[in-house]
Amino acid sequence: MKIGMIGTGKMGGTLGKLWAEKGHQVFFGSRQPQKVQELAAQVGHGAQGGSVAQAAAYGEVLLLGVPWKAAQETVQSMGNVDGKVLIEIVNGVDMQKGPALGFTTSIAEQIAAWAPGARVVNAFNSVHWETLLEPDFDGQSATLFYCGDDAAAKTITAQLGAEIGLDPVDCGPLWMARQLEPVGFLWIYLAYVAGQGPQTALKWLKR
Amino acid sequence: MKIGMIGTGKMGGTLGKLWAEKGHQVFFGSRQPQKVQELAAQVGHGAQGGSVAQAAAYGEVLLLGVPWKAAQETVQSMGNVDGKVLIEIVNGVDMQKGPALGFTTSIAEQIAAWAPGARVVNAFNSVHWETLLEPDFDGQSATLFYCGDDAAAKTITAQLGAEIGLDPVDCGPLWMARQLEPVGFLWIYLAYVAGQGPQTALKWLKR
Repeated sequence: MKIGMIGTGKMGGTLGKLWAEKGHQVFFGSRQPQKVQELAAQVGHGAQGGSVAQAAAYGEVLLLGVPWKAAQETVQSMGNVDGKVLIEIVNGVDMQKGPALGFTTSIAEQIAAWAPGARVVNAFNSVHWETLLEPDFDGQSATLFYCGDDAAAKTITAQLGAEIGLDPVDCGPLWMARQLEPVGFLWIYLAYVAGQGPQTALKWLKR
Repeated sequence: MKIGMIGTGKMGGTLGKLWAEKGHQVFFGSRQPQKVQELAAQVGHGAQGGSVAQAAAYGEVLLLGVPWKAAQETVQSMGNVDGKVLIEIVNGVDMQKGPALGFTTSIAEQIAAWAPGARVVNAFNSVHWETLLEPDFDGQSATLFYCGDDAAAKTITAQLGAEIGLDPVDCGPLWMARQLEPVGFLWIYLAYVAGQGPQTALKWLKR
């Protein structure tokens, strides 16, 4: 397959290298022609390098791996990409607020506003009740993601989860519910809309 | 520990039962006194049942497990909960749009608007480049979550992921990026802010 890598950072560079090794024809595109020639030579396997527009014209499949701030300009410099597969891997993050776009609040924060004296913890969004009864998935215990602004309240939550066999993972302050609620939605979607059913769970892997 | 269960659905009912079995003092609170008395008797281990306000007054730890639409009224009927740990597990979901609150768009949808002819797939948000080189975590391959509106483009993405050892999971249409981008942010947060480092990944467990 002819793959145009738009952006040659760690992700684009590594993916391009791996796909070239698997026999795909890879063309790296960047605004820095010197850098991209070196990368292509390093990767070998016939990998080529050039401009963003050249990579976009070359690939049947394009991988867009640039910073969010550069995304609009980069997309517009690709030229005509009608009908091409465009795999975008852009993470736009504001470390104080979550994803850069479209995320403004959460149910957890709203509940904390309604009960301002309570030590609110957001948890269990992505855990099915059947998982509570059988948290082990072939040696892997399902993860209990939780977040909150009160450390002691979070410790209690983690203990209550661990007691029933879940693997608690502290996900930071309460506004991180802007992530955990979508994780919960993803789980619900896969189980009930995509038809995978409730014998499914999310796991935080670590080594 | 004295735990007040606010809401007695599948999640609250099951968690209350498990925690009662572990020796905690559990009080189920509901707007349906009859139902809650039956539940408490069924659970045994000294579990009690009563109103939402009674459960809220009883527990040092409260678990709020009610539908999002009932959340405000329920929180307001709890009475004074100052200083109490309030574990909220509310999922408010609109199956067409994602979480009920605070989520309006995504980078993927914006990129698709900029490149309207392209067959955009959102992927790799929660995969570190080092994970690309070593996708196996002790027998579990890291999951490649992806979404998009073009089925063939998604199949290509899944194949390109599987070839390099990732476990591809189709997460539905492109607006599901409203979930995958927060999943990506969660991963970044845990790795870099919470200090767990890049030797971490998310896994979709299934049995």
